[in-house]
Amino acid sequence: MFSMQVGLIGLGKMGHNLALNMMDHNHKVVAFDLDKNAVARLAEAGATPAESISDLVSKLESPRIVWLMVPHGKPVDNLIDQLTPLLSKGDIIIEGGNSYYKESVRHAEELSKQGIYFFDVGTSGGMEGARHGACYMIGGDAEVFKTIEPLFRDTAVPNGYVYTGRAGSGHYCKMVHNGVEYGMMAAIGEGFEVLEKGPFDYDFAEVARCWSNGSVIRGWLMELTEKAFRADPRLDQIRGVVHSSGEGQWTVQEALDIQAATPIIAMSLLMRYRSQEDDTFTGKVQAALRNQFGGHAVEKV
Amino acid sequence: MFSMQVGLIGLGKMGHNLALNMMDHNHKVVAFDLDKNAVARLAEAGATPAESISDLVSKLESPRIVWLMVPHGKPVDNLIDQLTPLLSKGDIIIEGGNSYYKESVRHAEELSKQGIYFFDVGTSGGMEGARHGACYMIGGDAEVFKTIEPLFRDTAVPNGYVYTGRAGSGHYCKMVHNGVEYGMMAAIGEGFEVLEKGPFDYDFAEVARCWSNGSVIRGWLMELTEKAFRADPRLDQIRGVVHSSGEGQWTVQEALDIQAATPIIAMSLLMRYRSQEDDTFTGKVQAALRNQFGGHAVEKV
Repeated sequence: MFSMQVGLIGLGKMGHNLALNMMDHNHKVVAFDLDKNAVARLAEAGATPAESISDLVSKLESPRIVWLMVPHGKPVDNLIDQLTPLLSKGDIIIEGGNSYYKESVRHAEELSKQGIYFFDVGTSGGMEGARHGACYMIGGDAEVFKTIEPLFRDTAVPNGYVYTGRAGSGHYCKMVHNGVEYGMMAAIGEGFEVLEKGPFDYDFAEVARCWSNGSVIRGWLMELTEKAFRADPRLDQIRGVVHSSGEGQWTVQEALDIQAATPIIAMSLLMRYRSQEDDTFTGKVQAALRNQFGGHAVEKV
Repeated sequence: MFSMQVGLIGLGKMGHNLALNMMDHNHKVVAFDLDKNAVARLAEAGATPAESISDLVSKLESPRIVWLMVPHGKPVDNLIDQLTPLLSKGDIIIEGGNSYYKESVRHAEELSKQGIYFFDVGTSGGMEGARHGACYMIGGDAEVFKTIEPLFRDTAVPNGYVYTGRAGSGHYCKMVHNGVEYGMMAAIGEGFEVLEKGPFDYDFAEVARCWSNGSVIRGWLMELTEKAFRADPRLDQIRGVVHSSGEGQWTVQEALDIQAATPIIAMSLLMRYRSQEDDTFTGKVQAALRNQFGGHAVEKV
């Protein structure tokens, strides 16, 4: 079995599972995290522990492969700043976070000046995917990609990775994936809203189970919907507040930039914002206006 | 193997495939359609041909089971009118079309006066599903359902049917299923719209293939998306005109009736209407107004 060596930085839920997944496939992992317990835990599972970024780099053979699995923004920026002087021409950085694609384009450009290859990798499938088979969208140099392809092939589900083109295209693809996800989740939520408010009395877990088997809308999200209803049949324990972590917003911002008409994805993002408010100023203004012109009663605070 | 006898009326793509599926599972099918060739074709495959509705009824043992697989509205109404005087107390009508649930509630009420049981069955999974494993949402009498359950169990995919409650609830569930489908399809379409207009050059079939394996948005619709792009990589042969056959509209009408906030499903329906127009009056009015107040140029017809 072909074996590679990877320096993995960031041992959160995703990074830890990804490391186990890589080691299952005979790849060697040198691991670092600011949390020493996380490093120790992974060392017990067979990884080589590193005490610092420079220790990690020193333990890697050339050309070095460093895989970052940390939150986007500052953490990624800081790590790349620290890594840059430690790496050499021909080394490779794989950035597996949910980063904004324009940052990845910038990182790739800056690193290329030193001959360091940068790959932006959108990762889907959640923690379970990282552990037993993820889904990757990978941007970066086409030739060098072939040398690191085994890492993705081995840790993805069968057929679960795609080389998307030049740097930035991986995270862009993942951004759009998440935009689609927002719309699909909103459609599923609204469907059950109608079933819940409508004239019949459904067992939602049973409906989701049926819709997960043989229907047009079957898929992983519907399977998760069944699971959620099995655990809490009317979701009495959950408030309908939907947060978001960036990609949906970026998709809509991008759609505005390139003037692509995407009302469903935009609406699903805006309805998430709406869900975060107990009351709205929009509503107050409209209630006040109905009162002004028609004398319609308002609900007092 | 437990074997039942069913009178099937309506041998279009769905009905024909459903009949083959039932016969695969040792059920006996007496078949009728206004198209004599369709009856002959199914007789060759093993069904008992009927020359008329009354001939079909006369060939069934009591309690008779008649399964309708015809378009909703007039065809269903006319058939039920013709069947009613021919059937007896305890007989069963299974209505497998995409009917509006209020019609199914009405049919069930009228037939119950004669002691005839009515089951409204929403069927998903397309032609392939009807042939090799469909997905059913079934409303009607709970006790009598048990006597016909083998028909659904045998012709559905494993776990692919659900008894949804009193008559009407099956078609209601299917209506909402299709509303969710509209939203999910719109989200997928918009995602590829962004990829198409954006700064990178994607192989859409490869992206859909990747998204079908291990991603959060994996499912049958994404698999069909890959298939479509394999056949026509940029969909150059297809105009972006999206028609609809009722259920999405009913879902939105129902949401209005019960005052359920479903902007994503509603928007996906409205955007289908938009897709059917080359130009819009909405657009003309806005262009005229911009010209009126700001002197902005209009595009001339």
